[in-house]
Amino acid sequence: MTQQQSLPVGTAPLIVGVDVGGTKIAAGVVDTNGHIYGRVKLPTDTSQPEMTLHSVAAAINATLEAAGVEPAQLAGIGLGVPGQVDPAQGIVLLAVNLGWHNVPVKFWLEEQFGISCEVENDVSAACLGESLYGTGRGVRNMLYLSLGTGIAARMLIEGRLYRGTNGMAGELGHAIFVPNGPRCNCGANGCLEALASGPALVRLAHEKLATGQASLLRDLPDYPSTLAAEQVCEAATREDDLAWQTLNEVAAHLGYAIHLLAMAFDPQCIILGGGMAQEGPLLNAIRAAVVRLAEQSPIFREILPQEAIRLSSLKLDAGILGAASLVSTRLKLSKSEV
Amino acid sequence: MTQQQSLPVGTAPLIVGVDVGGTKIAAGVVDTNGHIYGRVKLPTDTSQPEMTLHSVAAAINATLEAAGVEPAQLAGIGLGVPGQVDPAQGIVLLAVNLGWHNVPVKFWLEEQFGISCEVENDVSAACLGESLYGTGRGVRNMLYLSLGTGIAARMLIEGRLYRGTNGMAGELGHAIFVPNGPRCNCGANGCLEALASGPALVRLAHEKLATGQASLLRDLPDYPSTLAAEQVCEAATREDDLAWQTLNEVAAHLGYAIHLLAMAFDPQCIILGGGMAQEGPLLNAIRAAVVRLAEQSPIFREILPQEAIRLSSLKLDAGILGAASLVSTRLKLSKSEV
Repeated sequence: MTQQQSLPVGTAPLIVGVDVGGTKIAAGVVDTNGHIYGRVKLPTDTSQPEMTLHSVAAAINATLEAAGVEPAQLAGIGLGVPGQVDPAQGIVLLAVNLGWHNVPVKFWLEEQFGISCEVENDVSAACLGESLYGTGRGVRNMLYLSLGTGIAARMLIEGRLYRGTNGMAGELGHAIFVPNGPRCNCGANGCLEALASGPALVRLAHEKLATGQASLLRDLPDYPSTLAAEQVCEAATREDDLAWQTLNEVAAHLGYAIHLLAMAFDPQCIILGGGMAQEGPLLNAIRAAVVRLAEQSPIFREILPQEAIRLSSLKLDAGILGAASLVSTRLKLSKSEV
Repeated sequence: MTQQQSLPVGTAPLIVGVDVGGTKIAAGVVDTNGHIYGRVKLPTDTSQPEMTLHSVAAAINATLEAAGVEPAQLAGIGLGVPGQVDPAQGIVLLAVNLGWHNVPVKFWLEEQFGISCEVENDVSAACLGESLYGTGRGVRNMLYLSLGTGIAARMLIEGRLYRGTNGMAGELGHAIFVPNGPRCNCGANGCLEALASGPALVRLAHEKLATGQASLLRDLPDYPSTLAAEQVCEAATREDDLAWQTLNEVAAHLGYAIHLLAMAFDPQCIILGGGMAQEGPLLNAIRAAVVRLAEQSPIFREILPQEAIRLSSLKLDAGILGAASLVSTRLKLSKSEV
């Protein structure tokens, strides 16, 4: 499913799934079995809101070309966007990393391509993707925790995406974990995202390096200008003490977040996704943090056995597949309404 | 609705709602409009599991007598029990305060009274009661936070009670808030319940009194043997410093719990119920703690405006009404199945 495949003749209906990120846009042509054709990844131009829309259109055109598909063959376009979305109107209310505020992206894309379009929050889309085609298949009450530049959880409840009153259910990344802790982009201090996101991990490593502690990280070619979360994780695999201290601090917060989410939702499983979930050493540190909490709490052990914490199997394809599923779900709904 | 009323002739269908507590059992005969007749409150005999069942039966007989109703006039009996329940089987899996473990209470009561019986967790029942007849009327996504000897949250999601995978969704009372904090009955340390329940509040006041600090609490007739949470709250209304310090510490934890629940569920409102929610000074302290968090976090302010934190309007009747609603819901379901 994650390999590039050529498109069988006559396959239908096809949907373009687009995962819009702050730096890259991933897109693919998806069939009803969840196969992805003509997968592409292009840079996001965030210089102006209009330019970002053009980046999205460019990614759609690129995947159509790569898959050898005409717009007329499409049943629709599905979009996952990192921000607050009104899916009914197809408007992105606020996407800080894209510089979007009240952007009618559905209307714009439908004008551009002449095809109907669906929009959702990107983590919600990934959660749907994982539940339809990935580790969460068949799970009715599922929690998806996305770990990356941002941190957010999304829930399937009784098989349906739970959005909450303002579409903000699961915004645990902006729950305050350490009063008066490090500043978060949201304006608060000590949010989970300011303690345990990718950028927070890098900031923490920098703080430790500033104390003069020895570390393999000092030997990196561009040190200290371009330190990345992946590099800290890589140093941890080589038994770097400073890297492990950093990962363990971040993991302690994430383990606690998993504990809270389990106590609140009592889900069948918690699936870890997003870029940071791909890092083995961090995952191990998170599991160790959860084990420490489970050893302390019999009720937590009962609610969430260790094997209920799973790794996303679709990895970064979850976003493309989930975005595409917005269109197939809408098609099924309109069919059942007839 | 909360006053004793005589039963109009021919009113039907009638349901007995029972709220089983560790020290008292409250029961009433409930009509379809949510009026309660023959309200009674009897002590719970927890000397043996069998004796507790007899206490429940005694409460049912007492309310029938007080309301002048025969068992033959009843559509059913609904029971709220403080513990883990299998509602489909009508079995109480575990109710620590009643000494019940795998008690087939539905079967036993149906044998006893010859009427069908429904069983749920008591906080779930109170949540349903509040949503049908109280402050939560018409709210689709509602969170009910019960504050008393125990602490637990329950959620209506899209108008339906969300139970979670093991029937333990909302068990935030056993989330660890202070690692290595005070011992909780569940076996863990530093659970919310060990920090902010009624008994925790009393324990905290005792700790402060032990330091020799001045307090009106020392003038209580039976001091220090019978100090109760109500007395600490009462002392706070008389500007007792030690009492206020105690309430503020407890309220800081409860305010944080409200913050976490709001970020996780994005509910339309959070309703505070249970015995501790009846205490004005504590409520004020909780509201102040929430305001402090809201001042720090723009996203929390957006998700949960101050007016979305409401006080239960049914107070202790929520449990009776919610327990009775289990029967009326089952009747409606079976009607719609036909």
